[in-house]
Amino acid sequence: MALLVQKYGGTSVGSVERIEHVADKIAAARSRGHRIVVVVSAMAGETDRLLKLARAIDLRPDPREMDQLLSSGEQVSIALLAMALRKCDVPARSYLGGQVAIHTDDAFNKARIQAIDTERLLADCAAARVPVVAGFQGIDPDGNITTLGRGGSDTSGVALAAALHADECQIYTDVDGVYTTDPRVEPRARRLDRITFEEMLELASLGSKVLQIRSVEFAGKYKVPLRVLSTFVEGPGTLITFEEESVEDALISGIAFNRDESQLTVAGVPDRPGIAAAILGPIGEANIEVDMIVQNVAADSTTDFTFTVHRNDHERACEVAQRIAAELRAKGVRSATDIVKVSLVGVGMRSHAGIASKMFTALAAEGINIRMISTSEIKISVVIQDKYLELAVRTLHKAFGLEAASTST
Amino acid sequence: MALLVQKYGGTSVGSVERIEHVADKIAAARSRGHRIVVVVSAMAGETDRLLKLARAIDLRPDPREMDQLLSSGEQVSIALLAMALRKCDVPARSYLGGQVAIHTDDAFNKARIQAIDTERLLADCAAARVPVVAGFQGIDPDGNITTLGRGGSDTSGVALAAALHADECQIYTDVDGVYTTDPRVEPRARRLDRITFEEMLELASLGSKVLQIRSVEFAGKYKVPLRVLSTFVEGPGTLITFEEESVEDALISGIAFNRDESQLTVAGVPDRPGIAAAILGPIGEANIEVDMIVQNVAADSTTDFTFTVHRNDHERACEVAQRIAAELRAKGVRSATDIVKVSLVGVGMRSHAGIASKMFTALAAEGINIRMISTSEIKISVVIQDKYLELAVRTLHKAFGLEAASTST
Repeated sequence: MALLVQKYGGTSVGSVERIEHVADKIAAARSRGHRIVVVVSAMAGETDRLLKLARAIDLRPDPREMDQLLSSGEQVSIALLAMALRKCDVPARSYLGGQVAIHTDDAFNKARIQAIDTERLLADCAAARVPVVAGFQGIDPDGNITTLGRGGSDTSGVALAAALHADECQIYTDVDGVYTTDPRVEPRARRLDRITFEEMLELASLGSKVLQIRSVEFAGKYKVPLRVLSTFVEGPGTLITFEEESVEDALISGIAFNRDESQLTVAGVPDRPGIAAAILGPIGEANIEVDMIVQNVAADSTTDFTFTVHRNDHERACEVAQRIAAELRAKGVRSATDIVKVSLVGVGMRSHAGIASKMFTALAAEGINIRMISTSEIKISVVIQDKYLELAVRTLHKAFGLEAASTST
Repeated sequence: MALLVQKYGGTSVGSVERIEHVADKIAAARSRGHRIVVVVSAMAGETDRLLKLARAIDLRPDPREMDQLLSSGEQVSIALLAMALRKCDVPARSYLGGQVAIHTDDAFNKARIQAIDTERLLADCAAARVPVVAGFQGIDPDGNITTLGRGGSDTSGVALAAALHADECQIYTDVDGVYTTDPRVEPRARRLDRITFEEMLELASLGSKVLQIRSVEFAGKYKVPLRVLSTFVEGPGTLITFEEESVEDALISGIAFNRDESQLTVAGVPDRPGIAAAILGPIGEANIEVDMIVQNVAADSTTDFTFTVHRNDHERACEVAQRIAAELRAKGVRSATDIVKVSLVGVGMRSHAGIASKMFTALAAEGINIRMISTSEIKISVVIQDKYLELAVRTLHKAFGLEAASTST
């Protein structure tokens, strides 16, 4: 008999029928002897509807009022799910963030969870009741409602699992697990049974949008076993473990990619200390997030400094870069928006040499030119021209044997 | 400089445009130097939408979950109105019932307000901020959300006005005041500048659905001056006063009517003590509300006992009445659904004789037969055949000179 925190996303509770389906799933898990604590997002579309109302009034609405507004979405879904559970004879009780209470700081729209009172939830479990908790929301020290930012319901689920010392936090969504890559790009992409937290972090941050990145960090920090499963298809999903070794014994877990990047190069900057800060400082001040940063060893007294930003920030970043280039007496700024980033991720590469060269060879064999390279312990990212994205993903997927289980080298 | 509690109903905040219009009205009142505390209902249609969702899951949803669900409606409207106020440079802050806090008992769906903390609201007023409070909702001693029943936002407004010792509680709605009768029946119906609480209670309970009856009782109990005004048309509205004398010096304030009644007569029941209880007891146990009750002096050893119920309850009431009639060995049950109740209301009739006879004479002159009569200190109600409703209302409106100010008798 395990204590499970089950989190259901907006699509999973997007209609009365789906809410009833979720109630059935919970009832089934409970009849197998598990104690269940449920976390729910707002019904799909509801948050957008509320955002639209707010923006019709004010394009930059007051953050406190925004949280007051948006948190009503989960209030509806928890009440409906509790009703549906009771309808199938499962005693249930819904709780708002403030009723649990889930204590956060007062950073409206992007609050951080500080503490969770588990008394009510444990009392419910002890009484064989299913508590249904509103995800995404909490309460600040003054009693104001706060929200955790979009996708914050995953974080709520993980935080509750950590506070309750649950055996597993199960994130129910509309995909049945984490895949080796996006099946829309490579139909032979395969669902992973297990993946390590570090791999998941790299995959998530690189664009495999299965889980909110913060919830994965949270789960890793508190060692909460996390499982991603589908609400609509039965199956084991993917377990995200905090074990050191990738159980599948594969070098590479998956291939992530990101179509939203653009590249800027400040060419011919003086090769001296402080240059990186001189360039990235003003970019950060302009509220532009930088992803990859590459600087090669200088060939002469100058060097080229390259970084990538979100494509939406491209024009603003170029303006800032031009200004910096002039100040630094650099040769100029080169930029490109027709690029994508493709990344190999796997804890196996820590202990194996030759992964990078195998990657570059495979890409070269298809005539794909690599424009930038950046590596971490468990990830190799390359920037290539956007038209080669699909070809690159499929080539690497095959080269590292991801379509079949654990046959890579 | 007065302290005003302004309550805006669902139609008044039914769209973004209307919310902005309400914000303008509040800003204008504030710029005239008034301190304003606002109470808001859910956007029109929202409560019905939520009810429909709940009933799709369970025709008799859990009362606690129902309140958790329904209270989200006001949460949306208060946040949007606070945003709209800030947009027009009025500092504002929204509060849920539990944030104020508005303390209630734990009778979900029909909670009663026990106490209101005024600290936050008074602090806002002192800081020239406008607090925007969710109507209809409160919090019970265990921190559960409760609701006051449909139309409870009026009660919230009055209760807040009482707690804050406000100078006036202004109920903004889609009518511009209380009329001498329904203008759809008598186009010459006239808006009353003032009306007493007792008259308003009789008018409200008789079907002039301008204000929720409980809020009027509440206002009377705490001597809160109550004003009904239109959100959409400028004007003074109708002030409901707790002064003894009707200021307009009219005998009759208005004519109410009710089309939803049906009549049952248990004929030939023994004329002995306990008969009324023997008949109404089982009716009450069947959860049927009784409106008028008439029993005449017995001519022989038996009498006829007549009462009216809501037309929706007619069939059930007939079944119960048949059973009772058999038990009491009564002659039988007669019933009619083609009836309406028409009532004259006015504090003036307390000190004036001849009102009833004038009423009956006027009706008789039009050939309208009276089936039942029931009177109170400030009201005379008659039951007539439904087809005569409009004629009766117009006849009485004219007979008592209601179309012109204070020229009756």
